[in-house]
Amino acid sequence: MSLDEFALIERIARRTRARADIVLGIGDDAALLQPAPGQQLAVTADTLNAGVHFPAESAPADIGWKALAANLSDLAAMGAVPAWCTLSLSLPHAEGDWLDAFADGLFALADASGIAVVGGDTTRGPLSISITAIGQVPAAQALRRDGARVGDDIWVSGHPGEAAGALRLWQQGRLDVRGVVADAAHERLRQRLQRPMPRVSLGLALRTCAHAAADVSDGLLADLGHIASRSGVAAVLQADAVPLSAALRTALGDAAALDCALRGGDDYELCFTAAPERRQAVQALAADLALPLARIGVIAEGRGVHCEGDAGAGRSGYRHFAE
Amino acid sequence: MSLDEFALIERIARRTRARADIVLGIGDDAALLQPAPGQQLAVTADTLNAGVHFPAESAPADIGWKALAANLSDLAAMGAVPAWCTLSLSLPHAEGDWLDAFADGLFALADASGIAVVGGDTTRGPLSISITAIGQVPAAQALRRDGARVGDDIWVSGHPGEAAGALRLWQQGRLDVRGVVADAAHERLRQRLQRPMPRVSLGLALRTCAHAAADVSDGLLADLGHIASRSGVAAVLQADAVPLSAALRTALGDAAALDCALRGGDDYELCFTAAPERRQAVQALAADLALPLARIGVIAEGRGVHCEGDAGAGRSGYRHFAE
Repeated sequence: MSLDEFALIERIARRTRARADIVLGIGDDAALLQPAPGQQLAVTADTLNAGVHFPAESAPADIGWKALAANLSDLAAMGAVPAWCTLSLSLPHAEGDWLDAFADGLFALADASGIAVVGGDTTRGPLSISITAIGQVPAAQALRRDGARVGDDIWVSGHPGEAAGALRLWQQGRLDVRGVVADAAHERLRQRLQRPMPRVSLGLALRTCAHAAADVSDGLLADLGHIASRSGVAAVLQADAVPLSAALRTALGDAAALDCALRGGDDYELCFTAAPERRQAVQALAADLALPLARIGVIAEGRGVHCEGDAGAGRSGYRHFAE
Repeated sequence: MSLDEFALIERIARRTRARADIVLGIGDDAALLQPAPGQQLAVTADTLNAGVHFPAESAPADIGWKALAANLSDLAAMGAVPAWCTLSLSLPHAEGDWLDAFADGLFALADASGIAVVGGDTTRGPLSISITAIGQVPAAQALRRDGARVGDDIWVSGHPGEAAGALRLWQQGRLDVRGVVADAAHERLRQRLQRPMPRVSLGLALRTCAHAAADVSDGLLADLGHIASRSGVAAVLQADAVPLSAALRTALGDAAALDCALRGGDDYELCFTAAPERRQAVQALAADLALPLARIGVIAEGRGVHCEGDAGAGRSGYRHFAE
């Protein structure tokens, strides 16, 4: 079933949740929103292109989920509560079934995180999804990349490298990313690539606990490098402290698993620094959220990221335009 | 010169203006913004794809200008003051010269309108520009599409149809859209297509004067149809009152000029309704802004758009996915 632009927008508009702070939603020249008093806005934009940011054969529901997840992860890394987003969708064909499946994935995550789609457009073109997400955070409470202090512990959530591991398996022809696979370890990795879970609750809890945070979208070394350079400090990482999942090690072997964890993108975990006095509080948080939080290094005087025990040293994180 | 993603972002970041309400700009996971007390946010998103929304051979500066203009026009139609935007740019190649020229056009308009780029990303892919723009408008003062009242006059700014006229000339091989052309009338039309001027000042002035407004991006009949349907009224347009520029009539003849004005997209003029008691105020505004404002019809009871004196009746506005 082929739809025109207005029918496509209508199909998205009727799926989105209501929020009391939406004065006027989709259907006018712009949405009107009422920000809460005392809050700052956290604003982020991410684009996912077919064949660049996800395998072109990915299920549309997975594409919808992941496009929003990438943005929510940025809000999580700021300690912001997701509020509203715009969705710009370029589609080669105006296919109702495809759009419904895409919306299934997108709104599954949107509804779980409380964010509403308040605008956007659909255009004809190669498949591309641009989302701008807006969150709210009380003034002066946002997590930033530039707050790391010498002596801080470095922490990471979850098991970095699993998404990159799934991508490698797919590139090797060993993983079908279009849907559920039988092998439990491979399915776990596929889920991490296709349905990453942004760490919104963790970000909110870290407001009172962490000095600096970033999400791990470019790779742990690269994103830790952003924290180090913005904070004017060095990050010293212990490679053997980076938590590698059994699924990743089994699938790729220890050396490749570590390489994925350090240099792979798309993890959407949070990397953060906190004072050593906060270790118990961070560990309590891990228990509360049922989310592993691993202490993987320390912040020191100096510059750059130093990774002790990393055989692949010298290579950096994933860059789209790098040669 | 080929650049990686971070260098591209840096190249954009150093061009944008400062604003006191930007707590944290480009360089973290998200920007942090401080909205002004008592204001609502107007949020809009528009994507422009090469070959769909602009001729692929357009000058990069024109592409940058137009991508922002489409969004500012939406803010203008809400009566909002432009504040911040995100820019998602998909580029087939990471070309520094191209990006600098694109930024020349984008920031010429951004700086003139006071809007700052606070985030975004660059990805590899077919040329596509997605901008989400955020403006501010005092609570309850926004212009909306749903406020038209029976008896209102219908007004339009400028000379609609000129952008569509330029597109037709280009499609007929009669206009080179890559740069300045010698023929003054053709150059005027080319400017309207490639460098449309969003009517931000008009939108602000109309807050106290108009009942409803929309920007003319889909075509005058289509956008007036949005006002009529959202307001639950009919719009009766006098075709012979629609102001056709001499440049457009000379280039295309009277019949095609009217067709462009009624059904062409990309005008980025404002169409609005106001009580007849406001005629003098609207005319004074036209003089203040040095912008023609023409009274082209009335709002009546009923439904739909009725165009008196339109030989091409039955065809509607431009739709990207329409057959």
